[in-house]
Amino acid sequence: MPELRQNIITREWVIIAKERARRPDEFVRPKKDTEPLPAFDPGCPFCPGNESMSAAETYRVADREGWKVRVIGNKFPALSQEGDRIRRIDGVFRSMSGVGFHEVVIENRRHDLSPAQRYIHMRKDPRVEAIIIFKNHGQSAGTSLVHPHSQIAATPIVPTQIRHRMDEAIRFFDETGECVFCTTLRRELADRHRIIASTDSFVAFIPYAALSPFHLWIFPVRHCSSFDEIEEYEVTDLAATLQTVLGKLYYGLNDPDYNFSIRSIPAREGQREYFHWYLTVIPRIVRTAGFEIGSGMYINTALPEESARFLREVKLA
Amino acid sequence: MPELRQNIITREWVIIAKERARRPDEFVRPKKDTEPLPAFDPGCPFCPGNESMSAAETYRVADREGWKVRVIGNKFPALSQEGDRIRRIDGVFRSMSGVGFHEVVIENRRHDLSPAQRYIHMRKDPRVEAIIIFKNHGQSAGTSLVHPHSQIAATPIVPTQIRHRMDEAIRFFDETGECVFCTTLRRELADRHRIIASTDSFVAFIPYAALSPFHLWIFPVRHCSSFDEIEEYEVTDLAATLQTVLGKLYYGLNDPDYNFSIRSIPAREGQREYFHWYLTVIPRIVRTAGFEIGSGMYINTALPEESARFLREVKLA
Repeated sequence: MPELRQNIITREWVIIAKERARRPDEFVRPKKDTEPLPAFDPGCPFCPGNESMSAAETYRVADREGWKVRVIGNKFPALSQEGDRIRRIDGVFRSMSGVGFHEVVIENRRHDLSPAQRYIHMRKDPRVEAIIIFKNHGQSAGTSLVHPHSQIAATPIVPTQIRHRMDEAIRFFDETGECVFCTTLRRELADRHRIIASTDSFVAFIPYAALSPFHLWIFPVRHCSSFDEIEEYEVTDLAATLQTVLGKLYYGLNDPDYNFSIRSIPAREGQREYFHWYLTVIPRIVRTAGFEIGSGMYINTALPEESARFLREVKLA
Repeated sequence: MPELRQNIITREWVIIAKERARRPDEFVRPKKDTEPLPAFDPGCPFCPGNESMSAAETYRVADREGWKVRVIGNKFPALSQEGDRIRRIDGVFRSMSGVGFHEVVIENRRHDLSPAQRYIHMRKDPRVEAIIIFKNHGQSAGTSLVHPHSQIAATPIVPTQIRHRMDEAIRFFDETGECVFCTTLRRELADRHRIIASTDSFVAFIPYAALSPFHLWIFPVRHCSSFDEIEEYEVTDLAATLQTVLGKLYYGLNDPDYNFSIRSIPAREGQREYFHWYLTVIPRIVRTAGFEIGSGMYINTALPEESARFLREVKLA
């Protein structure tokens, strides 16, 4: 019989389709016969030397060769840096001017965590209510440029999904006096079945109610509500953990497309006992269909414990 | 400047990316040079004469030739018809046995609305909490068999997203004394900008805060909370409206992949003043990426009013 699992953090149910479940190695992407990418592409707006081809720079981490990380405006921003937040309510039609930020982080060193500096800057802007850091890797994850990069978007409202997550975290805290993320992490570490990798300050694991094959979370061990309050030693540790996890996906599943995103408390909130920032990685190896659209529930055809064991066993060169 | 719009029914915000917006005709799918499908495929388990190749039949609409619609078990069901609902709570790990229904409706006449009969049957089962009717059309919408079919799934829990929608509808009712769906429909009919097609009993329109290009809703005019309480005259009208809408997508956008699903009140609830069933259609012509995953918000690169005008003007043969 299939099993339904509820994610205590999101309150969302998922169907673990045991009868339809595929072995972890069945999700390995077929070998691609593509040419390796060049180290430098004269037509790429993100390559060093081509800085004039990209939108205005907002931040740079300099080094002897010029820069190792650059943050620039998005050429087609979904949110505009200029203007005021104007809310209009016309009966059932509610809108707001699309102010905020939408920037691109060009990661010379692929897993460098420098978005924190721009995060701090955007959080100081009183028009900003939420900040989302995300990466689209590969075509089915929505990327359009191959040069390694991630994005930061700052929105003038708190997205409803984030509100719902806050409500859940507060409810758990009211009932138990504990952070639901800390409690989950403690149980996952005690169980060990779904752990993929860990360092002193970060733990990567497949959630008990993972939405899709190899959907995984990276939690900081230290309780902290917002990504921009990350400590220096944690940056190094997170980079190492992310490198390990993405390396295991790369070698284990043959370079699958994926998205990752960092979830933090809304920008206007301070440090809270009940909320804990984290990073989520979603390999794009299955498609959602009408059931997911009609119910908001997912059907996962991989057993979280098997996926975690598979990734644990992937050896990195 | 981009514009944010909030959907009053779901409370979800969407970014209407005006600067990035594409003209409606830019979403037309490139011509495919594929052979037309045969009327009968000897290897297809859903074709007449091949009934023994499919799972057990649960319902049939008979006609002189045998049947015009059949409902059968899903060969790889995500939910099992046998067994009890067993809830397990082990600290943060919560699960439930995967009982329910997962059936396939083989639509001889493509838009026949006969799922209502199976809906009524499933709703009587005390283990069932929610029923989702959905269709996956085309590969990127998650379909695996080309013979026209839709699916019905009945879950032993109320999905969280449906709970949230109920909460919003109740809140609106408490504040205004009106159904948020009826109010929205009245405003849309007064505005007319986003209407695609209408009959006496159904209205098809692009929502003010549509999530993606050509995302559309079909609302029954008569207030009614659950799909299985549809009247005979409405079945005919819904079939006609759906045929019009899907025809406009087919001819206007060149047979895009799409999902549709029917949203109703949870199965154990009765007729309620605040909730209204409806049908949602999502053409799968864009991809979600890390921003959507990290925020739950969508970026729509089409202006709802333009998409609606485009579809209104598509002539059906």
